[in-house]
Formats: sequence, structure tokens, C-alpha cells
Amino acid sequence: MSKIYKAAMIVIGDEILSGRTRDENVNYAANKLASRGVTLSEVRIIPDDTAAIISAINELRVKYDYVFTSGGIGPTHDDITALSVAKAFVTRLELRQDVCELLKQEYKGGDFTNASAKMAMIPAGAALIPNPLSAAPGFIVENVYVMAGVPVIMHAMMDYVADIIEGGAVVKSRTVESSLGESRIAGGLGEVQSRFSHVDIGSYPYFTDGARGVRVVLRSSNESDLENAEAQVIDMIDKL
Amino acid sequence: MSKIYKAAMIVIGDEILSGRTRDENVNYAANKLASRGVTLSEVRIIPDDTAAIISAINELRVKYDYVFTSGGIGPTHDDITALSVAKAFVTRLELRQDVCELLKQEYKGGDFTNASAKMAMIPAGAALIPNPLSAAPGFIVENVYVMAGVPVIMHAMMDYVADIIEGGAVVKSRTVESSLGESRIAGGLGEVQSRFSHVDIGSYPYFTDGARGVRVVLRSSNESDLENAEAQVIDMIDKL
Repeated sequence: MSKIYKAAMIVIGDEILSGRTRDENVNYAANKLASRGVTLSEVRIIPDDTAAIISAINELRVKYDYVFTSGGIGPTHDDITALSVAKAFVTRLELRQDVCELLKQEYKGGDFTNASAKMAMIPAGAALIPNPLSAAPGFIVENVYVMAGVPVIMHAMMDYVADIIEGGAVVKSRTVESSLGESRIAGGLGEVQSRFSHVDIGSYPYFTDGARGVRVVLRSSNESDLENAEAQVIDMIDKL
Repeated sequence: MSKIYKAAMIVIGDEILSGRTRDENVNYAANKLASRGVTLSEVRIIPDDTAAIISAINELRVKYDYVFTSGGIGPTHDDITALSVAKAFVTRLELRQDVCELLKQEYKGGDFTNASAKMAMIPAGAALIPNPLSAAPGFIVENVYVMAGVPVIMHAMMDYVADIIEGGAVVKSRTVESSLGESRIAGGLGEVQSRFSHVDIGSYPYFTDGARGVRVVLRSSNESDLENAEAQVIDMIDKL
């Protein structure tokens, strides 16, 4: 078996927790990581609060191969992610001249202010994550990847990061749909699951426009196990 | 000042972490809780894994006034939330006759199986959360509210729960929009924030259809502070 790579994501976002904004980054990251053979194992949505950020980063970076954060790297008073990451790693922020140059090119005509310079304050020794939309970069400290919260920027940064991280075998999935109730298939489904320890079988009932049914999702990085388990689920449902 | 009620939410969902499904419950819960004067302070999305569920519940239930969970209370092998909650509280599951009756009415014609009976196994002493769509209830153990993952059912359960929990002062919000860059307003915005300790001021840049700008969101349960801070933000931006 190849190594299984696991990741956590930290969404830094008062605006998500208040209900004002719907998160659009978790699903994007989950799919992107899955395509690279990295399993997203945990997500935390936390407030724009230094202690909460430090605590989440330090707890998760020792537990997972990768930690991805989104949010809080802009120029305003509520953008505290860079400083919090520096504190989590017991290091300091340094003014990066290369980032200042990027920002000066972006913010012409007096828009480069002291506040802009804040976005050039990056934890010492960090590698940068390019921002193709508005210049201000994300950055990488050890296994922690710090990205913007604005979805279009976050997605671009995630694409970049997905290309440079190491991943394992890609998990494939199959879906079997049935109009039977979940209770009817539960016994047989459990039996199929017990025969395939390397396939995760999930059962998701749906209630859409009055129609009820269930979607059985099988997931595995072993394609022949996946096909065999799928065939057994289809066969089990056909016989009911 | 009235008491501030804080809550955490645990989304139990392999299907969210794999990227297959987008969560539709966090935003619903956040808005519902906000309307009741309860602050959603943290969200965790975790896998369908007993140890992960127990650990999240026990960590969060002592830290927050309320913990809300969604997912994993159906009849199939991957529905492990009820047992995990019982273990977290060092109690046992008991077969509830009242729930069996509800389920028998729902599942007529042989659809009430051993698997259905699993949904009547509820931690000892728990109060029930009604399920107006498919009968199988959620439940409440101390300050932990256990709800379904299917969005239409979860939302109905959340509505019920929001009516029975105690909340504090409702946080109101105002939004000021500007086409100026975030860096231009950052200095002035920080100054306004420093004058209003009971108002949270967040700044959210947007990049939509080529248009760029920033939304400043002010949040407070103190309405006069909120109005004054909003006026100062508008005035500050007008002068730029």
C-alpha cells in the first residue's frame, strides 16, 4: 500500500460563522486534494481570533501531513492570519521586498499604502503562493499552506498548491442509486461492507421534489475491490 | 451586558470531506442561531469515525453552551453517531418504544426492519427532536443536540431546536460597500474599530464579473454603537 496523505483545512472566517457568507472553499479544496491523492480528514471553521488560529494550527500541523488555511491575509485590522501563523511557529514577520515590488506594480497611483505593506509582512523563511488576481501572495511555512479567503483567489492558490504537494493513490468512487428506503437495504449493505475492508461504503438518503431514495457511494483506491463491491451492492438491491 | 451564548457545530460527514457533497447545514444553523442570539463560534467537519466523534463532542461540549451535530443517525452501518454520543457521555443506547411506534407508522408494508429499529436506539434519558419528514428523530443529551445530515430534515430539526434553546441579545449587522481598494480604507477602518470595542468590523473584498470593491460589515448587539460606527465608516470613506 502506498502512503496515505492526510490533510486538515482551517477556514478563518467570522463571516462564515455569522451566517452572512456561505463557505465556497471547503468543497473546492476537498475535490482538488482528492484529485491529488490527499484525503481531507478534518475541517475547522474558526473566528478571526489570534488565540483560536494559533491553537488550531499547532494542533493540526502535527496531526496531518498538510494544513491548509483560508482567510485573513489582507491589509485591514481584521487580517491577523500572518501574525498568528508566525506566533504558532514562534517566529517573526519580516517585510519582504519581493512582495513589496509585486504590490507596488498592482497598486498604482497611490494605492500602495502602509496598509498594503502589511501584506508584505510574511513569516520569516516562508515560500510564497502566487496570487494571479490581486498580487498579495499566500505563503507556506513547513506543512502549513496559508491562502486567501476570497473564493476566486483561494481557488487559484489551491490549484497552485495542489501541483506542488506530494500525494498518494487517488481514491475513486462509484454511486449506486435506488428508490428503496435506506432501512430496506441496510442489512445487505452492511454485509457487503464487512467483505471489503478497503472500500468505504456510505449511504445517503435524499428527499428531492417529493422523490425519496438512497445513493450508495463506494470509495476506494483499489479499483478491483471497488468494482467487485459495486457489483455486490447492485446485486443485493436487485434481489430485494 | 446580557450573557453571550456560544455554540459549536460538528458536521459528521465523509461525503463532505471527500468533496462529493457540499455542506448545506452550517450556513442554515449559523443564521438560525444568530436569529436566536446564539453565536456560532466554531465548526468542525469530521469523518464518520467513532473516535473522532467522541473526541470532538467531549472537547466542545465543555467549551460551549451548545453543541449541534449533523449526520450519521440513519439505519445503515455507517450511521454511528448515536452510539458515539452514548460513548462520549459514558452511557448506553436503549431501544425506545415511543420511537419504534413512530417508525412503524412511517415504514408500513414491511419496511420496518431490524435496521429501522437501529434508529430507535437512543442514548439513555435523551429528549427527542422531532423529524417531520421521515419520522426517525434526533435527540438531546445535556447540551448536545444531535440532528440528521439530510439538509431538509436537518433544517426542520434546527428550527425546532432554535425555538427551545435559550439565547442572548441578537447581533445586528450593517454593510457599507465601496469600490475603493481595501488598502485605501484599511487605515481609517482600523481607527473606527479602535473607537468601538463592542462592534466587530470586518472587511471583505470582492472580485465579481471584473468589478472590484470591498464590503465593510459591522456587527454588534448594541444598536446605537452600531449606528455610530457605521456613520463613521461612511464618513471616512467619503473623505477618501
